[in-house]
Amino acid sequence: MASITKLTGFPEWLPAERIVEQYLLDTLRRVFELHGFCSIETRSVEPVDFLLRKGEIDKEVYGVRRLQGGESDKDALALHFDLTVPFARYVLQNAGKLDFPFRRYQIQKSWRGERPQQGRYREFVQADIDIIDRAELAPHFESELVLVIADVFAALDIGVAQMHINNRKLCEGFYRGIGIEHCAPVFGAIDKLDKIGGTKVHEILRTAGLSQQQADQCLALASICTPDDSFAEQVRALGVTHPLLEEGLAQLLAVIRAAHAAAPGFAVADLKIARGLDYYTGTVYETTLVGHEELGSVCSGGRYDELAADGKVSYPGVGLSIGVSRLLSRLLAQGIVRASRSVPTAVLVAVLNEQHREASNAAARLLRGRQIATEVSPNAAKFGNQIKYADRRGIPYVWFVGDDGQHEVKDIRSGEQLAVDVQTWQPPTRDQYPQIVKEETP
Amino acid sequence: MASITKLTGFPEWLPAERIVEQYLLDTLRRVFELHGFCSIETRSVEPVDFLLRKGEIDKEVYGVRRLQGGESDKDALALHFDLTVPFARYVLQNAGKLDFPFRRYQIQKSWRGERPQQGRYREFVQADIDIIDRAELAPHFESELVLVIADVFAALDIGVAQMHINNRKLCEGFYRGIGIEHCAPVFGAIDKLDKIGGTKVHEILRTAGLSQQQADQCLALASICTPDDSFAEQVRALGVTHPLLEEGLAQLLAVIRAAHAAAPGFAVADLKIARGLDYYTGTVYETTLVGHEELGSVCSGGRYDELAADGKVSYPGVGLSIGVSRLLSRLLAQGIVRASRSVPTAVLVAVLNEQHREASNAAARLLRGRQIATEVSPNAAKFGNQIKYADRRGIPYVWFVGDDGQHEVKDIRSGEQLAVDVQTWQPPTRDQYPQIVKEETP
Repeated sequence: MASITKLTGFPEWLPAERIVEQYLLDTLRRVFELHGFCSIETRSVEPVDFLLRKGEIDKEVYGVRRLQGGESDKDALALHFDLTVPFARYVLQNAGKLDFPFRRYQIQKSWRGERPQQGRYREFVQADIDIIDRAELAPHFESELVLVIADVFAALDIGVAQMHINNRKLCEGFYRGIGIEHCAPVFGAIDKLDKIGGTKVHEILRTAGLSQQQADQCLALASICTPDDSFAEQVRALGVTHPLLEEGLAQLLAVIRAAHAAAPGFAVADLKIARGLDYYTGTVYETTLVGHEELGSVCSGGRYDELAADGKVSYPGVGLSIGVSRLLSRLLAQGIVRASRSVPTAVLVAVLNEQHREASNAAARLLRGRQIATEVSPNAAKFGNQIKYADRRGIPYVWFVGDDGQHEVKDIRSGEQLAVDVQTWQPPTRDQYPQIVKEETP
Repeated sequence: MASITKLTGFPEWLPAERIVEQYLLDTLRRVFELHGFCSIETRSVEPVDFLLRKGEIDKEVYGVRRLQGGESDKDALALHFDLTVPFARYVLQNAGKLDFPFRRYQIQKSWRGERPQQGRYREFVQADIDIIDRAELAPHFESELVLVIADVFAALDIGVAQMHINNRKLCEGFYRGIGIEHCAPVFGAIDKLDKIGGTKVHEILRTAGLSQQQADQCLALASICTPDDSFAEQVRALGVTHPLLEEGLAQLLAVIRAAHAAAPGFAVADLKIARGLDYYTGTVYETTLVGHEELGSVCSGGRYDELAADGKVSYPGVGLSIGVSRLLSRLLAQGIVRASRSVPTAVLVAVLNEQHREASNAAARLLRGRQIATEVSPNAAKFGNQIKYADRRGIPYVWFVGDDGQHEVKDIRSGEQLAVDVQTWQPPTRDQYPQIVKEETP
């Protein structure tokens, strides 16, 4: 039946995979909330003209229309392609009801009609954090977000992550210092460095009108990458001066030093990080999983000044977005993590015969009352078959309510079966909830 | 600016309201998992022809198209209007990888282009549970779901809920027993009983070709509503016999008796419950909040036999859907519940001056390490202003790191300030997380 074929780019997970996704989402939420971020969600749709006003037409937006509708074009809606633009709108709309600086996290799906590729989806979950203030945003927030993300990856415990940080003012000041007037094409070219290499980028810069020496200098700047504050000396050694360069240097130094103090080894100053998006005006971030660099950045963002502005007041902010679906698909595809079982259930209560089902139900109620996820066997088949039902799903315990009202529980992994008290028995925590099993890295 | 106006029917919540929504969702998830239901999510879109094949065009489906796309009509997509139809598709698609009977819960948004009204949205969150099996579904699952929902409302603790249960076989058997051949129009008319009253329904039934006596009998059946199994006598007193009626009576008796035993007072047999949807074939459920009956059903569903079938195998199931957005909007609008604060933060660490920010950060890290949500003050303003920052958000504690490394914590509600050990201090649980405050019912 054609109508039930998979849709490329719209991932769906099996129950055991979904447990891994829930682990990611729960961990993100927990760390974000520990850092005082509020949860919000925005509606899935925005007016088309609002989504496209930033010239983001390359994002391949999905339009939305009532099939029976007679809306005019000005009412046309589209699915959001990220969580930043809707967040900016939410802030403007609710400015009078929010307390600033406003810290929010937002974990939702977004949609892009791009050609699906490995790790790129048309429907995907993102987890964003932003801190936004009215009129001015204190610079220490640009350091703070690095530490939140360091905590996120420490809590996820899925491998070593490294955040690559740059500052657009530093680069723009540098470019201006060597006489470049139009910086956007240079950012665009440098952004491609990892993909196409220095020779090709040099050609693009020359085509864009840069002199041989200017192009050399841009590439020299982009090659600087240090795990500490020594990048500043290397930049100064290039002999360029400009007030904006100094401002950017000072900001990047502050961010790198704060990161170095609180989460040593997590952040590097990497002066080739450009971020394609126009709206970033200061610190920019990209994050790679060490050993999975070809996956690209799993957590990116930056500082912006003008994203939310209502004519009278502007709301500068800084934010980062974690590509949850991209991360999850990699973790699953490479078997880096898996769930210890496919169901939440810790205990299956066997059913002696259908007349005894209520006795099994009563035992299950007592266990659930102590937060032990419990199912009652769907049938009163031979106990061997009821045990198989548990085994297929990875349910660790099968519970028996005897004809005489005696309770026994069998650990079906060891085969051990013990008489127990239904009022007090408790499984170990590692059995109570599905566990996330990490494969040992060789 | 027109583009940032609210879109009617697409609700968005403020942070404190979102905390209430998270409480609802977390509670639903916890109870569903305690009963052994797996979480799944399905993609937001389905092929248009798949969504409309059940003749659900009255659902006002939203079509989805790449604005830059050149798709042909056969590739057209639409947003799902419920979670049942996508779930049926998911089961067919993954049948080989799922274990049956398959118990799943699914908490996601759905979209309908209907005219928005009080409590009816165009984008809304639903929480569904279903148990689906291959070829045959044991009847005890129809009782089991009632007990899951009883546990849900007990755990939510937002007022008294009552589930109204009927059985379509019982009604259909009764209708056939009095000589009615086409039952669908009768179900449709009875479904309107609460809205338009018995006189109007009687007229509709007469117009549909029923005799005076047949219409009387249908209304007599629909008027039966008992909190126990006495409905069966009242049905039999109407003097109609039919094998299907007997089958339905036996099923409804089993469900009501099981509910009565495990959750007394929660379920009533209510023989006017019809459910408009064609696909229900046995037990049907509706749930009202006592005192909020005009809100309509907040949790509905039923037993279905043919929703998922791939030509060779059918997958009968039983499911219920909770209208989370409808419930939430009522709870918020009537002030029935609210969050104790608007942020997750339990502690604000004050900043003596910007040179001491790292000392405040270090204290915050230690607190977060013990799962205490902590923010550091955004500025080094006068302590009075930093306390105001906490007060505005409902953050209960402000933490001070002295110049001498001494730590003190102030409960800003009582004003009490104590010297404490940053390595061991712990707030009471009721302060550690935002609490859901229930208004006393007068």
